[in-house]
Amino acid sequence: MNTAKPLILLTNDDGVCAKGLNELLSMIASLGDVVVMAPNAGRSGSACSITPNIPVRYSLVEEREGVTVYQCTGTPVDCVKLALEQVLPRTPDLVVSGINHGDNASVSVFYSGTMGAVFEGCMKGIPSIGFSLCSCMPDADFSACEPYVRQIAGRVLEKGLPEDVCLNVNFPALKKLKGVKTVRMARGVWGSEWVSAAHPKQEKCFWLTGSFTNLEPEAEDTDLWALERGYVSVVPVRMDVTATRAIAQLKDLEAL
Amino acid sequence: MNTAKPLILLTNDDGVCAKGLNELLSMIASLGDVVVMAPNAGRSGSACSITPNIPVRYSLVEEREGVTVYQCTGTPVDCVKLALEQVLPRTPDLVVSGINHGDNASVSVFYSGTMGAVFEGCMKGIPSIGFSLCSCMPDADFSACEPYVRQIAGRVLEKGLPEDVCLNVNFPALKKLKGVKTVRMARGVWGSEWVSAAHPKQEKCFWLTGSFTNLEPEAEDTDLWALERGYVSVVPVRMDVTATRAIAQLKDLEAL
Repeated sequence: MNTAKPLILLTNDDGVCAKGLNELLSMIASLGDVVVMAPNAGRSGSACSITPNIPVRYSLVEEREGVTVYQCTGTPVDCVKLALEQVLPRTPDLVVSGINHGDNASVSVFYSGTMGAVFEGCMKGIPSIGFSLCSCMPDADFSACEPYVRQIAGRVLEKGLPEDVCLNVNFPALKKLKGVKTVRMARGVWGSEWVSAAHPKQEKCFWLTGSFTNLEPEAEDTDLWALERGYVSVVPVRMDVTATRAIAQLKDLEAL
Repeated sequence: MNTAKPLILLTNDDGVCAKGLNELLSMIASLGDVVVMAPNAGRSGSACSITPNIPVRYSLVEEREGVTVYQCTGTPVDCVKLALEQVLPRTPDLVVSGINHGDNASVSVFYSGTMGAVFEGCMKGIPSIGFSLCSCMPDADFSACEPYVRQIAGRVLEKGLPEDVCLNVNFPALKKLKGVKTVRMARGVWGSEWVSAAHPKQEKCFWLTGSFTNLEPEAEDTDLWALERGYVSVVPVRMDVTATRAIAQLKDLEAL
């Protein structure tokens, strides 16, 4: 009988000091031994980016019963790669990322550093979950997430996930949540993405911003539908991004 | 009858001076009017990352008949977003990215800035293609790619691509190519990813590196299989990353 406690790797993209990470740590600490390897500052929008051209450093922040916290100069994906290969005593049973300050529903999954870390865990064969809250406030209220975080993480620790599948979990920013919906990612698009910025030499200079449009607001099986109605959305995300049905449609390329 | 020439947006992640970008520009220049918006220096491994916290600048590099070249301080995704909203006179007919110095087959599609730009084009509803060569050499020989680039880009300009599908095209680093295979991405994994680096204050400091393992070397329908045998690999990539079949398997989460 294996009596060892589960080993959980925790990271995020808002940085080691973010409220969302520390709240998530409190929520999952009773589920196992937790090692945090998180960026030393915010890395929002870092997607699956890695650091190929400068060295990456990490250092111990804090160590207490069942919890060890490190910070890292790299991206969320770097954090996972470093922890797996240089820090953890064995392959962890679970990778969790978040709780992100800001949602990662629909196509935002592509830009998300929170989900980048989750993809990395999944690529390494480890059950991996990203948690995000639909509020970007630094002092956002994460309290309603707790029972869902504990039960989803506990369920995944117990039963695992399908091969090459990870979870993108988003929470509405509400005091009371209505339950969970297991759904697909909505089709959506970002627009009006740039705001002109003054520049001392009049260079063309812009801040990235944007507004999001749900392209299928009527569909009742999407993450955005669930979130807008007060449900926690759980999207199982696949690592095989092949458009399988399109292979046959594009076989004519082989005639070139 | 619309007699306007096609409008093509070209970008990459190796930077505006990279040989691969300039070779690709030569290969596609006869297919339409080309606007280049590329990073001002290398951005390898930038995936779909964006620049949310500092301003992004762009400037004109060169303008000649049918070709306009800009450089940008942001990521490949920023380049596409900026070009679409601030620079191009209309929505382009095609987004191309590359030719990357280094392959983006199998799971490398997740880390690739080349493919990040392609994902962004596809998210905006534009037929989008990433081209990569299995050689990281700055002076790599791209000449064998030319007929394939022209025919694949020409075919996509003419017939488009399935909705929410883009192409990840990889070329073996060979003088003679055997043809095209339309395939799926291979399952693979990176390992041995860190090399310890000396640090003046003995901090824990590492360079990211790694070796790649094909987890299904026998499968004959993958990009790695095709590339290892001298074929150009074309993987149609989907933007809906929902693991559709897993939704039913994970409906029990709704009981929480």
